[in-house]
Amino acid sequence: MLTRTTFVISDRTGLTAEALCHSLLSQFPNVQFDIENLPFIDTVEKAQDVVKTLNGLAEKNADKPLVFATLVNDEIRKIISDGNVIFFDLFDTFIEPLEKELDLESSHSVGKSHGVLDFAQYSSRMSAVNFAMTTDDGMETDHYARADVVVIGASRSGKTPTCLYLSLQFGIFAANYPLTAPDLESTDLPEPLAPYRDKLFGLTIDPYRLQQIRQERYSGDSYASPETCQFEVAQAEALYRNNNVPYVNTTKKSVEEIGAYILHKASLRRKI
Amino acid sequence: MLTRTTFVISDRTGLTAEALCHSLLSQFPNVQFDIENLPFIDTVEKAQDVVKTLNGLAEKNADKPLVFATLVNDEIRKIISDGNVIFFDLFDTFIEPLEKELDLESSHSVGKSHGVLDFAQYSSRMSAVNFAMTTDDGMETDHYARADVVVIGASRSGKTPTCLYLSLQFGIFAANYPLTAPDLESTDLPEPLAPYRDKLFGLTIDPYRLQQIRQERYSGDSYASPETCQFEVAQAEALYRNNNVPYVNTTKKSVEEIGAYILHKASLRRKI
Repeated sequence: MLTRTTFVISDRTGLTAEALCHSLLSQFPNVQFDIENLPFIDTVEKAQDVVKTLNGLAEKNADKPLVFATLVNDEIRKIISDGNVIFFDLFDTFIEPLEKELDLESSHSVGKSHGVLDFAQYSSRMSAVNFAMTTDDGMETDHYARADVVVIGASRSGKTPTCLYLSLQFGIFAANYPLTAPDLESTDLPEPLAPYRDKLFGLTIDPYRLQQIRQERYSGDSYASPETCQFEVAQAEALYRNNNVPYVNTTKKSVEEIGAYILHKASLRRKI
Repeated sequence: MLTRTTFVISDRTGLTAEALCHSLLSQFPNVQFDIENLPFIDTVEKAQDVVKTLNGLAEKNADKPLVFATLVNDEIRKIISDGNVIFFDLFDTFIEPLEKELDLESSHSVGKSHGVLDFAQYSSRMSAVNFAMTTDDGMETDHYARADVVVIGASRSGKTPTCLYLSLQFGIFAANYPLTAPDLESTDLPEPLAPYRDKLFGLTIDPYRLQQIRQERYSGDSYASPETCQFEVAQAEALYRNNNVPYVNTTKKSVEEIGAYILHKASLRRKI
């Protein structure tokens, strides 16, 4: 398989550049990209060090390294782009057309995107994280009146990371409630959930994947058996349908996707 | 202030496009952008609906809406870009030069970036999230042998969200331990931390901001007084210096920045 050395270079965290780089390169499944993230390249000296490394690699390998950059400072950007590299400028490519369209000059200031949040936003996020921690795994169901969403599902279907992600990323108050074996004997809503029908969002999962997850820690236990997993998933889905609870299959989705999907489908208002 | 209607349009979550859009627009602080995220635009029908809305807005407002898009499908992309909009193509702009450089055609498949994780990655992430939950706020210090990092700091300096973020985003095993009043009477490491000096990472914060945070829930309490906040921050920093614990000031940083900074400074190896 073809391999290609790739760098993501940013003056801040590089998270955005990295995500876009992965997204772009995933369109070339027949190439093995060795991707290194170089964040916080925010001085001329650091940029000069980086370019030395890049030029060394270009000399050693048959191909020039690919570089995906979000660098606001013109001088730093020029040092890197003048290196012996294939340079993809994820930021500046769009700044000039934006300046033209808005008829304004850009401020050339570093790092607003993941930068300072105002106190209200900070506080929203912290409150949401605290809420998710407090109401994890069916705890404190009497707090559900304050929830934006109550995520329900069989044990190990992905509820906790989903709720933590919703709280961290969007400031959503997300509680989660496990549908346990006794809950799944009927397709009625468990008692603590009944008053909050409109806030419920179900998770489902491929029974084989669920079994694989449960077996990691409880192999041999009936909890991790194929029969239990199949039964619990089928019953959970029946319960969702019976109560008009929207739900999403988490099997092939990342936490980011599940979170974005719930936000979208449940028309939740993000707070950050 | 100038205002400008802006849309982020994607066939998947739109998270990457949204982050880059915010980053770009932050360079124009004198414009008020009203940004709406339209994720999961993955059919011709949805695209046609969107373009109707966009064209309606272009007619109503003096300016055409700005559109930032990551749309893999050519037909869907064309429907949107043919609308009465200013179109910034965050994805396709780079695909053609990449195809040329790699001498390969792109696969034009949707949504790999936040897409399916393999089971090992899924499992790493879940284990890390479980670890962060189990070891939150000084619980289960006997698990520190398995930690990649132990985040320490005064109460309300941002430890919990930092650890949750490190676990969700990078699969890092991150525990956190609160430096309480008795811990801060000396600048020696608290007993449970002493064996794990090399794993420690400190958080510090502007005392005024800390006071503001604490007062939200405990106003009137001495815990939220200016004196307590100043004393605890000063003592925590002295403790870090005395024990060569690296630390970061969280006051003006988002959770993403704090997480990326710790990953970088502590040379942690990400697992996802």
